[in-house]
Amino acid sequence: MNINKFVKYYGGENLPKRKSKLKIIPLGGLGHIGMNITVFEYGEHIMVVDCGLAFPEDEMLGIDLVIPDVTYLKENYEKIKGIVLTHGHEDHIGALPYVLPQVNVPLYGTKLTLGLVENKLREHNLIKSVERNCVVPGQTIELGCFKVEFININHSIADSVALAITTPEGVIIHTGDFKIDYTPIYGEPIDLQRFGDLGKKGVLALLADSTNAERKGYTMSESTVGKAFDEIFSNSTDSRILVATFSSNVDRVQQIIDSSKKYNRKVVVEGRSMINVVKTATELGYLRIPDNMLISAEEISKYRDNEIVIITTGSQGEPMAALSRIASSIHRKINIKKGDKVIFSSKPIPGNEKTVSRVINELFRKGAEVIYEDTHVSGHAREEELKIIHTLVKPKFFIPVHGEYRHLKSHEEIAVRLGMSPENCFLIACGDVLELDRNACQITGKVPAEQILVDGLGVGDVGNIVLRDRQKLSQDGLLIAVVTLQKQTGQILSGPDIISRGFVYVRESEDLIEEAKSVVKLELDKCAQKRITDWSKIKGIIKDTLRNYLWEKIKRSPMILPIIMEIK
Amino acid sequence: MNINKFVKYYGGENLPKRKSKLKIIPLGGLGHIGMNITVFEYGEHIMVVDCGLAFPEDEMLGIDLVIPDVTYLKENYEKIKGIVLTHGHEDHIGALPYVLPQVNVPLYGTKLTLGLVENKLREHNLIKSVERNCVVPGQTIELGCFKVEFININHSIADSVALAITTPEGVIIHTGDFKIDYTPIYGEPIDLQRFGDLGKKGVLALLADSTNAERKGYTMSESTVGKAFDEIFSNSTDSRILVATFSSNVDRVQQIIDSSKKYNRKVVVEGRSMINVVKTATELGYLRIPDNMLISAEEISKYRDNEIVIITTGSQGEPMAALSRIASSIHRKINIKKGDKVIFSSKPIPGNEKTVSRVINELFRKGAEVIYEDTHVSGHAREEELKIIHTLVKPKFFIPVHGEYRHLKSHEEIAVRLGMSPENCFLIACGDVLELDRNACQITGKVPAEQILVDGLGVGDVGNIVLRDRQKLSQDGLLIAVVTLQKQTGQILSGPDIISRGFVYVRESEDLIEEAKSVVKLELDKCAQKRITDWSKIKGIIKDTLRNYLWEKIKRSPMILPIIMEIK
Repeated sequence: MNINKFVKYYGGENLPKRKSKLKIIPLGGLGHIGMNITVFEYGEHIMVVDCGLAFPEDEMLGIDLVIPDVTYLKENYEKIKGIVLTHGHEDHIGALPYVLPQVNVPLYGTKLTLGLVENKLREHNLIKSVERNCVVPGQTIELGCFKVEFININHSIADSVALAITTPEGVIIHTGDFKIDYTPIYGEPIDLQRFGDLGKKGVLALLADSTNAERKGYTMSESTVGKAFDEIFSNSTDSRILVATFSSNVDRVQQIIDSSKKYNRKVVVEGRSMINVVKTATELGYLRIPDNMLISAEEISKYRDNEIVIITTGSQGEPMAALSRIASSIHRKINIKKGDKVIFSSKPIPGNEKTVSRVINELFRKGAEVIYEDTHVSGHAREEELKIIHTLVKPKFFIPVHGEYRHLKSHEEIAVRLGMSPENCFLIACGDVLELDRNACQITGKVPAEQILVDGLGVGDVGNIVLRDRQKLSQDGLLIAVVTLQKQTGQILSGPDIISRGFVYVRESEDLIEEAKSVVKLELDKCAQKRITDWSKIKGIIKDTLRNYLWEKIKRSPMILPIIMEIK
Repeated sequence: MNINKFVKYYGGENLPKRKSKLKIIPLGGLGHIGMNITVFEYGEHIMVVDCGLAFPEDEMLGIDLVIPDVTYLKENYEKIKGIVLTHGHEDHIGALPYVLPQVNVPLYGTKLTLGLVENKLREHNLIKSVERNCVVPGQTIELGCFKVEFININHSIADSVALAITTPEGVIIHTGDFKIDYTPIYGEPIDLQRFGDLGKKGVLALLADSTNAERKGYTMSESTVGKAFDEIFSNSTDSRILVATFSSNVDRVQQIIDSSKKYNRKVVVEGRSMINVVKTATELGYLRIPDNMLISAEEISKYRDNEIVIITTGSQGEPMAALSRIASSIHRKINIKKGDKVIFSSKPIPGNEKTVSRVINELFRKGAEVIYEDTHVSGHAREEELKIIHTLVKPKFFIPVHGEYRHLKSHEEIAVRLGMSPENCFLIACGDVLELDRNACQITGKVPAEQILVDGLGVGDVGNIVLRDRQKLSQDGLLIAVVTLQKQTGQILSGPDIISRGFVYVRESEDLIEEAKSVVKLELDKCAQKRITDWSKIKGIIKDTLRNYLWEKIKRSPMILPIIMEIK
């Protein structure tokens, strides 16, 4: 069945009843970075695109990661035909281990994407219970009333695809994360012809990557980084070379391998995620490493400095990653020595600037030369590339996705500058239900789309109250006033004691603590005199008194916890 | 007494005894951003350059600001002739209110610098007790055996100066914070002739600003920002304009005023520090505001949108600053409306990227147009400007100052590329005692140079232990296990109770808390059976048991506080 026939069958004008409308519901990925997941629904058919996690914001104290709220998917479990994955980055696959136990549906993705997903499923003991289906670019699959065609694109991880989803109402294109790379390292340049072909036939809606919509011009080709590596390698006749990059950027790793080969260097791979990805990518044929090139960190001493390259994680300054441990001399096997060249083949993700800078300072201190210019390119399309896609696809409706509001807004402005009517652009938010048919498109409802916080094994048990307490505790610590009272009379049997943590250094503030104790005792005595035995009232009095006392004395407001133990 | 005579007198070859050496001791400003303060000492004479604060690092939870450790100054109080200020930025004057009560010495600075210092002194009730001496560029003062010449330079605040300090061992140049601006807004371009003149006569050592040493090329002139403003103003025929910038950048404010005048707009000044600086700068003649131009926020409604400019603080996304409050609709008087143009005349200071981005997103959401390109220039010299100064001054010794280690290192590399011997460059750290005479220079000792944390009214009472507790509390919160025991037998009289904050949302985790309580009770009963009445031992058992229980159950490790109340 070719696409035209398909459209005719499901949504053609001759079809008698067409009660359902197409719904597009992003459960994540809009208005923030990460956690990409979008629902496509038509009647009794649902398909999901991606299922990613987000990393916690600064104010999400103690949180490990953030996953989407899939209440809507659980409520519509029987409709879901599958989850289609565009590529293997954490913000597109990372929530699968948390979502699949709630909604176990088949997965569809390319080989490398599934390879990385399978590593996760194995870790979470899900590998046997989840159906995986491998696809190749150019292939089309059927998911209920949807036909999904996988289109080759370029991104900072190999095997990334865009999707052309033929629905009863028309064709929807979802670009996934993409850039236009005419000279990619692995595979072919983005299939611009196919985008043009689909556009020519008519595209109902375009959902496109907005990450770099604010940036003018073009994103450079991945291959330019290899040239930079070659230049650095050729100038490094005496020194070891360390390269820190994103473990998932297999093409980047390939280029480091290629330069290492050219300049006769052995390669050490460091960092858990780097080792995992290199292993998976090599097994699946995405990474070609010459025999005998890889050595272990223990073997470094067998070689001269100019025969060594170390590929490592930690390009974002993550304190526990290999590079940070190497820089601060707590890595078990590798130490920085004077003259080492350290290449950051990365850019700090917003928010990580200071941690990255800290590692750079440490490396400089140890005598390393640190290189962080021209050694990275983005994986996301800039303005000129976006214009190409818009012009090829010419959609009726446009929904900017993948970005903070500013990115979505800038992307919309690009579309409008290209002649699109602002009424046909939809800057929607997570949870919005966008209903469309071949003529119209509008927001018609809202489904739950909270951010679910994961802390340790707890999923969703840390909410605003807990975070607010952590915030308060982090600022001025806490002060506990504890006392044992006689139940009937309110007389003090033991205490009051004052215990503090994170408030002041107690040994140097004994007077303050002693005085706080007297202040509490005075109030308790007053309560006993007045025969107040309502514990919550007494607690309130202790709290207010201590709060006022501390603020006046030292202008701090720790969390104050009055505890009353009662004895009959 | 001219400089040559002076040198002869104090340090000439004919001088019989010259036991003392010149010491340069940075107490702050090296290896981190902020907190600039440097001691110059010769025999019984000390002078200090600047006395700034630093803003807390991310891990300094709850800390308001950071000031230098001036133990060394307190110990040598009688030697200190004065503190010389290079300019009025917080990182050069902000610690004065904390340091002067410990070391009350005369201040020397230019008019605007002293004006801003005096605002601080008034706030801290120090205005009557501190001697201030106003200087002008070109002037030379004597401070004990030192002669200090103030040299006009350019920076992002008016009235900034470099210092040429004639010491018994030779002339030291301290650039302060500087850039080379051939077309500054206020005053003259940097006095390059004087730098050349001093260089020609011989400079013993150069201390120079390293902030932008990693950046190639030149920093643009402040006046280019005015051109950008003019263009934006001329294109804004219907909309209000808001400009957020650093309150201390008086020249920037002047340019906003100038464009406002040109395009017939009234100006509203918002934000406490902006109002203060505008007031001081106007009074002292550094800001020229046409009569009747300033209006209050209440009067905005009397004018059309294209007659209004709002100058505001908050360019770093500070949550409590005016712009953030305006963006999130909690400002009492000003609301964003569709079409408003908001100019960020600033760049995020490293670490502030995300808070700035949050404000930008909020402004976009409210319908504003946000402009943040070409509307800011740095106040610090880049590589090519640094080369000019090095080439003019040609010092014997070079000490890069004002920057993280990476900046200092890059600055050193620039000096070496210009022909300086690496042995004559000194990448010193805070507290290092650098001793030099006309022939040699070396580090000979170390003085205390800790960072002193200010939290509320407490100065230095928050140290590593308190910060570590805050850190722990912020990550997983806390769990208190409290029980009243019979002193002799260890029998439970009341409790155990479990109280948690910042750990889990208790209402949804009742089972976990109840089970934790039983776990504690079980251990207490065991202890009572064994007649253990050593409270600290029991506390240890409770702590270990709870820690293991929680980690196994939920993989979190909150702070655990066992509290035992005893009754005889």
